[in-house]
Amino acid sequence: MHIGMVGLGRMGGNMAERLRAAGVEVTGYDANPENTEVATLAELAAALPRPRRVVWVMVPAGPPTAAVLEELAEVLDEGDLVVEGGNSHFEEDRVNAETLAERGISYVDVGVSGGIWGRENGYGLMAGGAAEDIEHLMPVFDALRPEGPREEGFVHAGPVGAGHYAKMVHNGIEYGLMQAYAEGYQLLEARDDLIPDVGAVFGAWRRGTVVRSWLLDLMVKAVEEDPGLDDISGWVDDSGEGRWTIIEAIDAAVPVPVISSALFARFSSRQPNSPAMRAVAALRKQFGGHAVHASDGGAKVGAPPGATAERGSVAAPGASE
Amino acid sequence: MHIGMVGLGRMGGNMAERLRAAGVEVTGYDANPENTEVATLAELAAALPRPRRVVWVMVPAGPPTAAVLEELAEVLDEGDLVVEGGNSHFEEDRVNAETLAERGISYVDVGVSGGIWGRENGYGLMAGGAAEDIEHLMPVFDALRPEGPREEGFVHAGPVGAGHYAKMVHNGIEYGLMQAYAEGYQLLEARDDLIPDVGAVFGAWRRGTVVRSWLLDLMVKAVEEDPGLDDISGWVDDSGEGRWTIIEAIDAAVPVPVISSALFARFSSRQPNSPAMRAVAALRKQFGGHAVHASDGGAKVGAPPGATAERGSVAAPGASE
Amino acid sequence: MHIGMVGLGRMGGNMAERLRAAGVEVTGYDANPENTEVATLAELAAALPRPRRVVWVMVPAGPPTAAVLEELAEVLDEGDLVVEGGNSHFEEDRVNAETLAERGISYVDVGVSGGIWGRENGYGLMAGGAAEDIEHLMPVFDALRPEGPREEGFVHAGPVGAGHYAKMVHNGIEYGLMQAYAEGYQLLEARDDLIPDVGAVFGAWRRGTVVRSWLLDLMVKAVEEDPGLDDISGWVDDSGEGRWTIIEAIDAAVPVPVISSALFARFSSRQPNSPAMRAVAALRKQFGGHAVHASDGGAKVGAPPGATAERGSVAAPGASE
Amino acid sequence: MHIGMVGLGRMGGNMAERLRAAGVEVTGYDANPENTEVATLAELAAALPRPRRVVWVMVPAGPPTAAVLEELAEVLDEGDLVVEGGNSHFEEDRVNAETLAERGISYVDVGVSGGIWGRENGYGLMAGGAAEDIEHLMPVFDALRPEGPREEGFVHAGPVGAGHYAKMVHNGIEYGLMQAYAEGYQLLEARDDLIPDVGAVFGAWRRGTVVRSWLLDLMVKAVEEDPGLDDISGWVDDSGEGRWTIIEAIDAAVPVPVISSALFARFSSRQPNSPAMRAVAALRKQFGGHAVHASDGGAKVGAPPGATAERGSVAAPGASE
Repeated sequence: MHIGMVGLGRMGGNMAERLRAAGVEVTGYDANPENTEVATLAELAAALPRPRRVVWVMVPAGPPTAAVLEELAEVLDEGDLVVEGGNSHFEEDRVNAETLAERGISYVDVGVSGGIWGRENGYGLMAGGAAEDIEHLMPVFDALRPEGPREEGFVHAGPVGAGHYAKMVHNGIEYGLMQAYAEGYQLLEARDDLIPDVGAVFGAWRRGTVVRSWLLDLMVKAVEEDPGLDDISGWVDDSGEGRWTIIEAIDAAVPVPVISSALFARFSSRQPNSPAMRAVAALRKQFGGHAVHASDGGAKVGAPPGATAERGSVAAPGASE
Repeated sequence: MHIGMVGLGRMGGNMAERLRAAGVEVTGYDANPENTEVATLAELAAALPRPRRVVWVMVPAGPPTAAVLEELAEVLDEGDLVVEGGNSHFEEDRVNAETLAERGISYVDVGVSGGIWGRENGYGLMAGGAAEDIEHLMPVFDALRPEGPREEGFVHAGPVGAGHYAKMVHNGIEYGLMQAYAEGYQLLEARDDLIPDVGAVFGAWRRGTVVRSWLLDLMVKAVEEDPGLDDISGWVDDSGEGRWTIIEAIDAAVPVPVISSALFARFSSRQPNSPAMRAVAALRKQFGGHAVHASDGGAKVGAPPGATAERGSVAAPGASE
Repeated sequence: MHIGMVGLGRMGGNMAERLRAAGVEVTGYDANPENTEVATLAELAAALPRPRRVVWVMVPAGPPTAAVLEELAEVLDEGDLVVEGGNSHFEEDRVNAETLAERGISYVDVGVSGGIWGRENGYGLMAGGAAEDIEHLMPVFDALRPEGPREEGFVHAGPVGAGHYAKMVHNGIEYGLMQAYAEGYQLLEARDDLIPDVGAVFGAWRRGTVVRSWLLDLMVKAVEEDPGLDDISGWVDDSGEGRWTIIEAIDAAVPVPVISSALFARFSSRQPNSPAMRAVAALRKQFGGHAVHASDGGAKVGAPPGATAERGSVAAPGASE
Repeated sequence: MHIGMVGLGRMGGNMAERLRAAGVEVTGYDANPENTEVATLAELAAALPRPRRVVWVMVPAGPPTAAVLEELAEVLDEGDLVVEGGNSHFEEDRVNAETLAERGISYVDVGVSGGIWGRENGYGLMAGGAAEDIEHLMPVFDALRPEGPREEGFVHAGPVGAGHYAKMVHNGIEYGLMQAYAEGYQLLEARDDLIPDVGAVFGAWRRGTVVRSWLLDLMVKAVEEDPGLDDISGWVDDSGEGRWTIIEAIDAAVPVPVISSALFARFSSRQPNSPAMRAVAALRKQFGGHAVHASDGGAKVGAPPGATAERGSVAAPGASE
């Protein structure tokens, strides 16, 4: 098997390496001239064996992917096959597939999980497309997926779009899992009188417990590398798929309190002085004469000593709430 | 009617004024010698007319209230009546009532709402206790409550504890209401291209809309005084009753997603660099090589340009989430 | 002033009545032949005074509104003015405005709040559009809005789309407010040992308290009409604007835990045997041998007596959670 | 090593088997005469080797555990050691330890995870107590814990109470993890047009993905045994430790939106016609004349055709929300 790979960044580059190690020939193209093996997509197409040339696209979702697909539609022929392995929205897959189908080119979408560990461990793969296209790609999928039974690391999830839909849901779940561990982390840390070494507790959860998982292993590793997680800030980005998950949930009337809580926690982490919470503070000041913090985050204005309610606090009388 | 008032702070002092304005005689005691009318609780008791002397206690919940009640048990006699108008937990009310009952003293708990506006507008009152005790106190309640039909500003909610239980739930609701308006505030503010004057929109909701309320009026007032709420910080305290509400909800298996979300938003507002979100950031770094922020909150480490996902962003390829 | 009103249903019909009572002449068109005053939109247009004819559209959002606007583009002329008073999405407003602008027709979007009470109380109005168009419509707005200062029941929120954006946020807030009262309602009801008459407590919150509002008044009315709310089921619909609010929030990275919790509670209310909760039950059974309910909702399979954890329960030993 | 085991139910019985298989002698006592090896706790104590007799208690938390501990205080002597391996609250541990300390008896609390799989796989263990007591018990812990490095399945978490605190947090995390998978399950199931076989997708997540875990393996097993999870109902119990986790979080001001959402989802699953949602429905009816469901869950009263807002719905005009 010999395929083209478009995008040789962190993911595409690692995948190419894993493919080659498994005996799949790869010709790589990257927009960065220092990183590419061929100068153009036309050259890439020319380098691949016919019939049924295969090009795997691994570039940023949105305009970059659209641009690559548009160009591939020009340089590929009827019977060729494009794999979109990036993070396209599953509804874009349908549009992409239709556009390419006009030229007789097949389209398969693949959700790829595993991050930077995938090159060594293999990638979890969720594919959407026609059965014959999936069949044609099986040597590639088998090379990329982890060792073990095929059905434990690869799935033909359904028609075009199914691969990215499954990956989107995977990522939504991931948001929830991470936040669950994170809340537990803070709960352990909050009681350093009882739990002097949070990392040791997480470490002991790796075997035998109900919460054991790969994410837990990573949590243990993170705390080993940086006890107290002091070198990292609590500002947490999001890459967009969690948002899509919730929008789909809303469209299908599926309650997703955990996934949405996890996303909103990230939003909040990036808004230390949010308009919403300023509004709550303003309301409390209006009705109760409650002390508020000046906007410099400094001393409270008019706060009585001990006014902050933390552990075991009781309400001050006269407080309207 | 002539009653004693213990605690002449923001609430107790205002209430005494409103009572006097309505023709109820009040003798006031405060721990602060500059603020008190009698030197001791014994003197207070001696100043009140028998039989069935009435002392209204309006001091901070917890030890201060307990200390006052203990002393009142000494200086009052059988047939007298103590009103706990502070923010005691409703289960403490039962203990208090039993202790006083051993000396033949009656006990009524009253949840008082209205904040600093109560002196002028009247206070919303929720009372718990025996019917005959409530009956005896009606002139006091009628003086304190707002004008209008009695049942719109006062309720004999049930036996001892019912007043503070009702007030606790009132405050839990209040948390949810405030957070709802606050989320709306931020949503309006986020689109300053569409909504140049957030305060004007809130202002127009005062009449005819479904969301009109007293809190909305206060919100309008707050934005009038400080457009943009720039002089206030988003650090929001909590006085404890929201916590109690959720604990009771858990005990009774009542789902309270809104009230708890409102409380947790306050907790988060006070934790700009929380351990939980540092844990999420650490996990993302482990599995995906995602850029994280250094703990100084400064520049991102290794973040590609445009890495932050905000409006309309799409996922970077190779991002594991 | 003389305007056309398209859609004489519950809202449009009531609004026409209020307008006429205030001296605004209204010619009404409805798709229902029994309900209309003119046979066609062309006839409606012909009946209105030039220049600057005004047609207010009050039909269901989506295709019905689109169809009406398309036809109005045909029958109106340059300089005329269309008001979309239904619940269109604010981004559709821009499309609508552009389409009509091609023919020189102006477009104003108005969010209308107040429900079935609006005819009597007046409607809260949020308008988006050009200043001159708003100015031209002021007699209509003044007739529809509640009595009192104009700025307390009407706002020119911003350019086209701003009216419906403000209304959308209004409705999102409304979801949160309603759920907050509802959680409080259940908390009071859960303690009927303490609170024998939940309606009386809500009733007493109408004056003086922090939670007083129009929704609270309606809650009191609802409980008066049906104590225990026994004649109503807990299946709660949603009309779509709450969904839009959350989607916008996600797009703008605004955390909306309260509004989303309120929406998800409605979703859950319509899914008594949801796939998600079946999945949780299945997991518990897998790891812990926990008793589960058979799918007929009937007897527990293998549940030990007293296995249900409600108030004050403690964990059974051997339970893995 | 030779220890006593009190409580030979699902957990204690399995643990005794695993201990014996590893060469630890066990004398077992159970309140059920058919299940016990000795007639009384006194007999149990007499059967154990001195000095420093060890009794592991594995009975339901609360009164049953308290009763056993009280009796053990009588039949054990100075220098003996009691292990509470059930699900006691960590604050009870301190009380227990103090009571036993008065008689010179040591106390260790151990959180035990692993459910019905523990006998074969080993149990995850979190212990609280004095270092010398933990040291004495190491042969027992090593027999119970899974194979592999000790620190991956056992931790001396801290002083008395730390074991159960860690286990409580473990269970709180578990609630969040389960709900995250469950939400994902429903999201996949909602799109059967795209994802014809939800179980196959979950199955393919077992290797290489970020969400792989033991709970995921169990999910796959559950769906294999019952595709569609049709034989199980969505009524989900809770065993109490999730509640404790949230109460502790509130006490420590730790936001736990995910764990609490997971608990509330369980509460809601048991309340198909909840008072709160009846209140929301009642409010909607009051202000908007919205159709509601009669309490028999039957036909909607007054609902227009298509009134239910599900996928892609738009708001009806005139709807106040």
